[in-house]
Amino acid sequence: MPIIECVPNISEGRRTEVVAAIVDQVRRVPGVRVLDVSSDPSHNRSVLTLAGEAAPLKEAVLSLFDAATTTIDLRSHSGGHPRLGAVDVVPFVPIEGVTMGECVALATETAAAVAERFHVPVYLYEEAASRPERRNLEDIRRGEFEGLAAKMATPGWAPDFGPSAPHPAAGASVIGARMPLIAYNINLATDRLDVARKIAAAIRHSSGGFRFVKAMGIALEDRGIVQVSMNLTNHEKTPMFRVFDVVKREAAQHGVSVLESEIIGLVPAAALVSSAAYLLQLERFDPNQVLETKLREKQS
Amino acid sequence: MPIIECVPNISEGRRTEVVAAIVDQVRRVPGVRVLDVSSDPSHNRSVLTLAGEAAPLKEAVLSLFDAATTTIDLRSHSGGHPRLGAVDVVPFVPIEGVTMGECVALATETAAAVAERFHVPVYLYEEAASRPERRNLEDIRRGEFEGLAAKMATPGWAPDFGPSAPHPAAGASVIGARMPLIAYNINLATDRLDVARKIAAAIRHSSGGFRFVKAMGIALEDRGIVQVSMNLTNHEKTPMFRVFDVVKREAAQHGVSVLESEIIGLVPAAALVSSAAYLLQLERFDPNQVLETKLREKQS
Repeated sequence: MPIIECVPNISEGRRTEVVAAIVDQVRRVPGVRVLDVSSDPSHNRSVLTLAGEAAPLKEAVLSLFDAATTTIDLRSHSGGHPRLGAVDVVPFVPIEGVTMGECVALATETAAAVAERFHVPVYLYEEAASRPERRNLEDIRRGEFEGLAAKMATPGWAPDFGPSAPHPAAGASVIGARMPLIAYNINLATDRLDVARKIAAAIRHSSGGFRFVKAMGIALEDRGIVQVSMNLTNHEKTPMFRVFDVVKREAAQHGVSVLESEIIGLVPAAALVSSAAYLLQLERFDPNQVLETKLREKQS
Repeated sequence: MPIIECVPNISEGRRTEVVAAIVDQVRRVPGVRVLDVSSDPSHNRSVLTLAGEAAPLKEAVLSLFDAATTTIDLRSHSGGHPRLGAVDVVPFVPIEGVTMGECVALATETAAAVAERFHVPVYLYEEAASRPERRNLEDIRRGEFEGLAAKMATPGWAPDFGPSAPHPAAGASVIGARMPLIAYNINLATDRLDVARKIAAAIRHSSGGFRFVKAMGIALEDRGIVQVSMNLTNHEKTPMFRVFDVVKREAAQHGVSVLESEIIGLVPAAALVSSAAYLLQLERFDPNQVLETKLREKQS
């Protein structure tokens, strides 16, 4: 049974009854599991984590739009997080027995159905992007809901599906496919923020580091230590163990030790299995040797 | 859905049609998956790896006895591996969503049913053992089929279930519950067999090492290197990463490097996940953060 993860971000994090009603509508779709719901009042935003096969997930996203477009109005929305629409972003993530290509197809179909049924313009992003300048969410979202009408009127910013102007209340949505994202932090046994910042700069893509690392150095004031706070956006191509090793070596150059590392939220088993295989110097290791993977194979 | 592994060892590894007929009978039991079948002609023995829930696995073992006791006769059996019966050993192993206690209960129930239906004496072993001197398979099996009648007549060796004398053709069986066993080897970048042997002696339980490690040093003649060849019999209590680290340090004391390590056959994901967590210095890590584990939780 293939498993896809879907992580819709909606622009409501304060009215708990509205979030509950939206989640409730999603939960009613057979074949879809709601793994997590996190609401952030200061961002005024909630993140749902869903899992299932392609067809039920598409139904779940349509139900989500149905509930969200009738209860969220961006014209009266404020919060600390950039957003373009009532249903702001919907990534599909391949987890097991499914390819990225299948998630791209699901994102594209879902986007077309959303635009047709709810008259919401939709942009495709990341692996599903229709052109390079739409891969990054930040680029699509720049200008936010308030600047959306003007942005959509400029050349190159017609949506991939739906009307050429924003939905009055629900704005626009960004739907796509991406690898699982790992929120990974490494804490250093020092209070020297400059060290954390130098290491973050050394490893992140934007300043010359690894292709699939976003990183910043921050202080954990209450603990008197500093942290290299990261998002790993493709653990197959930029694996955790390599990031850990390089951070450790960079820290040592500054006379600093790694205190510990931590994963925030969920992590795909494959990211840890490949780390163990590397660090234990496992040769000739095949992921099918993992008992649970073998068990989930189709019976031959 | 709880998953139990069951690894019956039968005393037939040469007559492939007999093995195929036995496996076929097991495969017909609904709810049981046959993950692997390995036959060793020189041992004249086959090992089946089954998976499923408790009730279907019990049915599968009864089907296995039905087929094996009518086709295997220990009076004309020879081979390089110690054995007591036609169905020699049947361990149940907790994999997911099931406790060792439940596997002990399943072993005990299955043993009682086997004895009643097939008139084969059964000894319980490992976690299911009825007394300490029956924990180790080697102790129960000492004397083998040929010495069984005499052994059963001595005080302390009445079976846990079934008749007080061997089954004429099928001998006796050993049924129990144990942790998953990991066949783990570490190859050294040297041809010095004495080093591999010294390290094996340092880490194995029988000569003062870790409680759940069996180890020996062997030469890999064709590659010109040596190997510390191990069975890890409880990866929760004696974890892979600790064994790896100690072997590496011991080797360094002899001026030798670890070339690589390898896992033969299957390994539970938890053994690799805990190794990654240790080697990446992950703090506050909860196995429920593994996406696949979370997915297999019951829907709340």
